[in-house]
Amino acid sequence: MKRIIIASTSTLHGGSYLEYLLPTLQSHFKNCKTILFIPYARPGGISHTEYTQKVAQAFASINIAVKGIHEYEDAQNAIKNAEGIFTGGGNTFLLVTQLYQNNVMQLLSETVKNGTPYLGTSAGSNICGLSMQTTNDMPIVYPPSFQTLGLIPFNLNPHFLDADEQSKHMGETRETRIKEFHAFNAIPVLGLREGSWLEVQGDKIILKGDLKARLFLQNQTPEELAPESDLSNLK
Amino acid sequence: MKRIIIASTSTLHGGSYLEYLLPTLQSHFKNCKTILFIPYARPGGISHTEYTQKVAQAFASINIAVKGIHEYEDAQNAIKNAEGIFTGGGNTFLLVTQLYQNNVMQLLSETVKNGTPYLGTSAGSNICGLSMQTTNDMPIVYPPSFQTLGLIPFNLNPHFLDADEQSKHMGETRETRIKEFHAFNAIPVLGLREGSWLEVQGDKIILKGDLKARLFLQNQTPEELAPESDLSNLK
Repeated sequence: MKRIIIASTSTLHGGSYLEYLLPTLQSHFKNCKTILFIPYARPGGISHTEYTQKVAQAFASINIAVKGIHEYEDAQNAIKNAEGIFTGGGNTFLLVTQLYQNNVMQLLSETVKNGTPYLGTSAGSNICGLSMQTTNDMPIVYPPSFQTLGLIPFNLNPHFLDADEQSKHMGETRETRIKEFHAFNAIPVLGLREGSWLEVQGDKIILKGDLKARLFLQNQTPEELAPESDLSNLK
Repeated sequence: MKRIIIASTSTLHGGSYLEYLLPTLQSHFKNCKTILFIPYARPGGISHTEYTQKVAQAFASINIAVKGIHEYEDAQNAIKNAEGIFTGGGNTFLLVTQLYQNNVMQLLSETVKNGTPYLGTSAGSNICGLSMQTTNDMPIVYPPSFQTLGLIPFNLNPHFLDADEQSKHMGETRETRIKEFHAFNAIPVLGLREGSWLEVQGDKIILKGDLKARLFLQNQTPEELAPESDLSNLK
C-alpha cells in the first residue's frame, strides 16, 4: 500500500528545516530506524554531503538516522533496501536528470508504489506527478525526459504563489504559466501553497495543512479546495 | 553586420504593447516595409493569428506591415526573404520546440548574423543567447535541445526580478536560480530588468534604457552595470 507525503515546501517562513512537518513525519516513518535521502536536486548548488548533513540534523530530533544515496556503491540496491525514502528540494531539472542517469527513476516509482514510505518536498514532490512540466525551476541541465514517478495521477505546482495584484512586474503569473501548460496538456495541476501537503495512503489522496489548494483543470475555471479535501478521484 | 534589439519585455507596466520601444524600432527597421513575425511562443496559449494581429496593430503606428511566419507555406523561405524579423514573447520551451520542428533554428541564426535586422522580446530575447537555460518559463513541452541562436556570446535572463526582502515566500529567488545554473555552466548571464534592452551593431553590444542590468559570472559576486555599458567583450 502506498504511503506518501508530498509537501509544497521543506521550510516555512520563520521556521527551521522540516520543522512544521516533524509530527507528521514521526508517524509516517514510525517503522524506520534509517531513511534513504536523495540529495540530487542540490539547492543552490550545495554538495550531496552538505545537503545530507542538513537533513540528518532535522531527522535527529525524531530519532531517525539519514543516509545519502551517494554514499552507496549501488544506488538501485540502496532504494530496494530502504526502510523509507526522502527526496529533497532544489532544482527539478537536475534531480530528474540524475534519477535517469543513475538508472533509478523507474525503480523508485515501483518501490514507492509497493509500499516503502516516501517523503517529497518541493522538487522531490514535483517528481511524484506524471511529469515535471509544472515545475517553477530553471532548466539548468537537459534531462533525457520530463516524465517522472507517476505516484499520483496528476501534476503538482509546489510553492504555488497567488498573483500579486500590486505588482508592476510584467512577467507571467504562476496561473498564466499553468494556463499555458493546459494549452498543450490535459493533465490536472494542483497548486500547493507553502504549508500544504498531500497525504497518500493506498488510493486515498487527502489535502493536509491549514491552507486551501488551487486546482487547475484544462479549459475550466480554477477552483479552491479546502483542507482535508479528497483528491482520490482526480485524474 | 548584425543589427539586433534584445528587449527584456514587450510591455511596461501602464504602457501599451511595444510602446516604449517604438522610437527605437522606427530607426531599427527604417528600411523595412514589412517585417516577419514569429509567433511560436504563443503567450497564454493564444493563436498564431491573434498574436500576429496584436503585433501588426503596434507596428501600424510606425507604418510597418507585419506578416506571421505561419502564413507562409515555406518557413525557411520566409526567413531568407524577410526584410526584418521579430520574435515575440510567451513560452520559451514552446518557441524553441517550434523553431526546431520547423527546421529554422540554424537558418534564423545565420540570417540574423548576416545582417537582417532582428527584434526579440522576452522569450524572443532568451533565444538570442547561447542556450535557453536561464529562462523563467515553465517546461510545458519538451524541446529537442536547449541550444538557441547564439547571436550573443552569453545568456540572458529577461524580466529580471530583484528579490523581495519583505516576501515570506520560500521558493527560490531569481538570483538563487541563476546561481544554480552556474553550479553547472560557465556561461555569463545578464539579468535584464523590464525597460532595458541590448543594442547589437556588428560586434558592439550596448545596454540601453534607463535601468541598470545585473551581471552574473560563475564564482563571482554579481555586478550592477549602468545604462550604456559596453558588453562587447563579455563571454
